[in-house]
Amino acid sequence: MIPSRQIVLEAGKRVAPFVHRTPVLTSRLLNELSGAEVFFKCENLQKMGAFKMRGAINAIQQLNEAQKKAGVVTHSSGNFGQALALAAKNLGVNAYIVMPSSAPAVKIEAVKAYGGLVTITGPTLEAREKSAATIVEEKGAVFLHPSNDLNVIVGQGTAALELLQDQPGLEYIMSPVGGGGLIAGTALAAHYLGDNCSVVGGEPMEVDDAYRTFKSGKIEYNTSTDTIADGLKTNLGDINFPIIMELVSDIIRVEEGEIISAMKLIWERMKLVIEPSSAVPFAALLKEREKFKNKKVGIILSGGNVELSNLPF
Amino acid sequence: MIPSRQIVLEAGKRVAPFVHRTPVLTSRLLNELSGAEVFFKCENLQKMGAFKMRGAINAIQQLNEAQKKAGVVTHSSGNFGQALALAAKNLGVNAYIVMPSSAPAVKIEAVKAYGGLVTITGPTLEAREKSAATIVEEKGAVFLHPSNDLNVIVGQGTAALELLQDQPGLEYIMSPVGGGGLIAGTALAAHYLGDNCSVVGGEPMEVDDAYRTFKSGKIEYNTSTDTIADGLKTNLGDINFPIIMELVSDIIRVEEGEIISAMKLIWERMKLVIEPSSAVPFAALLKEREKFKNKKVGIILSGGNVELSNLPF
Repeated sequence: MIPSRQIVLEAGKRVAPFVHRTPVLTSRLLNELSGAEVFFKCENLQKMGAFKMRGAINAIQQLNEAQKKAGVVTHSSGNFGQALALAAKNLGVNAYIVMPSSAPAVKIEAVKAYGGLVTITGPTLEAREKSAATIVEEKGAVFLHPSNDLNVIVGQGTAALELLQDQPGLEYIMSPVGGGGLIAGTALAAHYLGDNCSVVGGEPMEVDDAYRTFKSGKIEYNTSTDTIADGLKTNLGDINFPIIMELVSDIIRVEEGEIISAMKLIWERMKLVIEPSSAVPFAALLKEREKFKNKKVGIILSGGNVELSNLPF
Repeated sequence: MIPSRQIVLEAGKRVAPFVHRTPVLTSRLLNELSGAEVFFKCENLQKMGAFKMRGAINAIQQLNEAQKKAGVVTHSSGNFGQALALAAKNLGVNAYIVMPSSAPAVKIEAVKAYGGLVTITGPTLEAREKSAATIVEEKGAVFLHPSNDLNVIVGQGTAALELLQDQPGLEYIMSPVGGGGLIAGTALAAHYLGDNCSVVGGEPMEVDDAYRTFKSGKIEYNTSTDTIADGLKTNLGDINFPIIMELVSDIIRVEEGEIISAMKLIWERMKLVIEPSSAVPFAALLKEREKFKNKKVGIILSGGNVELSNLPF
């Protein structure tokens, strides 16, 4: 069930030519404030503004020629749609992106700018899944799930892989938990490349399905999704769930106000544009600062795609 | 009049232990948009959020022990005040910072957070100069000018020095022009370390004193300072003026709307928080894109200290 060390390392090599090796930044002020020594892996500075390019590149490269010719399809509220569109363009493949009408305009425009073939549906997951299924049937395109696909998961883990290459002594790596792709990939990288490095997720209290899944041992769902962290509304899937159960050590939940405060600190002090979802792990660190006191902590700043006209501060 | 290659190289070594080696970032999208190949030196990610830490560190280190004991004083509307406060703290020296009542609250708070001893005066340059002179007299502190001091100038140039070490083939380096310290230091670094690398300044049309100085051959002044680029309102001084006249190849003026558009592009596409002054050289590149077509252009993103509650978009 758990992919091998070899698969994780190969993904790093496969993805590297197509992504930025993003910088790892530190802030004396945020270290003082948190009591930890924090290393921010800046995937907000990644191509298309988020780590999701990594998983898309890794997954498309492993399709056969006939599959590549038919194209790929996904449904996404934003970042994975952009990622797949750009990755597909780089690899000469058509990408069909199904997006909900509720997606931020900036994300829809970005998908189109990357050459993605956009279909807009209603805001429900059901509507998106149906629309994607139609494209699979009509075009023969390969469906790639944003977070519940092993090649995507391992690809997302290459951010943590690079972080551990740059900072081998990390005692923790923290990432946000949404659909589970990033944290599962991060946990794989930490498992094989870390030196006793624990992986801790940050999750909004308002969509704490992964926290409840972690406690109950079966996949839980959200009945409402009232969070500013719009990348974290989805739930875990059957592929990433067992990896998370085996390799993640904890999930910490945070309130909306804690997310906004952490986001503002990173904007003001680190001069980085990050989206609310990216602020969740740092909010979690601040919330349980005793746990991380004097520890070396890596944090994946997952993305920076935010509408500047609609900031929470 | 022009400092030697040796002095420029020594400043690089002197400053390095106290500053971040900031990343040089690129954006495929901004390259397409500008027609140039642009390398952004991210001094907004520098300690205290601006390149000015470099000049402050270089200057304080060259004081003698008695001078260090008495402390340093400057007047600044913002970034150099923060820089001197933090540099002085790192080197165990007192820093007296005179700030105008019109300075953004976030900058005044930051100076205090870095241990600077703040005096608030009226908004005029005259009031600030008088207040600084009083501190020199009463405390025996050494006055350090934010831009018209040779050690400060050479220190500011270490950003371009690092940029050229990372990207030796640059054909142009662009920086904003305010008091002239950054562009003079940049021009020194390009002169000694570039391979036929021209230095071009960007300046707001509303405070185009440096452009007019460049044309007339004598230091010109602004009668009004109605620009969003609040770091660029000051004029050149007798120390940086001859360096600029000899080593800078051009100064391009831009309108306020062009500054705001360039700033928004960098926020949205590069996910970097930059202050308006930092956007001026990229605005200048976009304005005269024919000049820079297919050229390798370095741009100093000078700082990121901006009030998030008061954005122009």
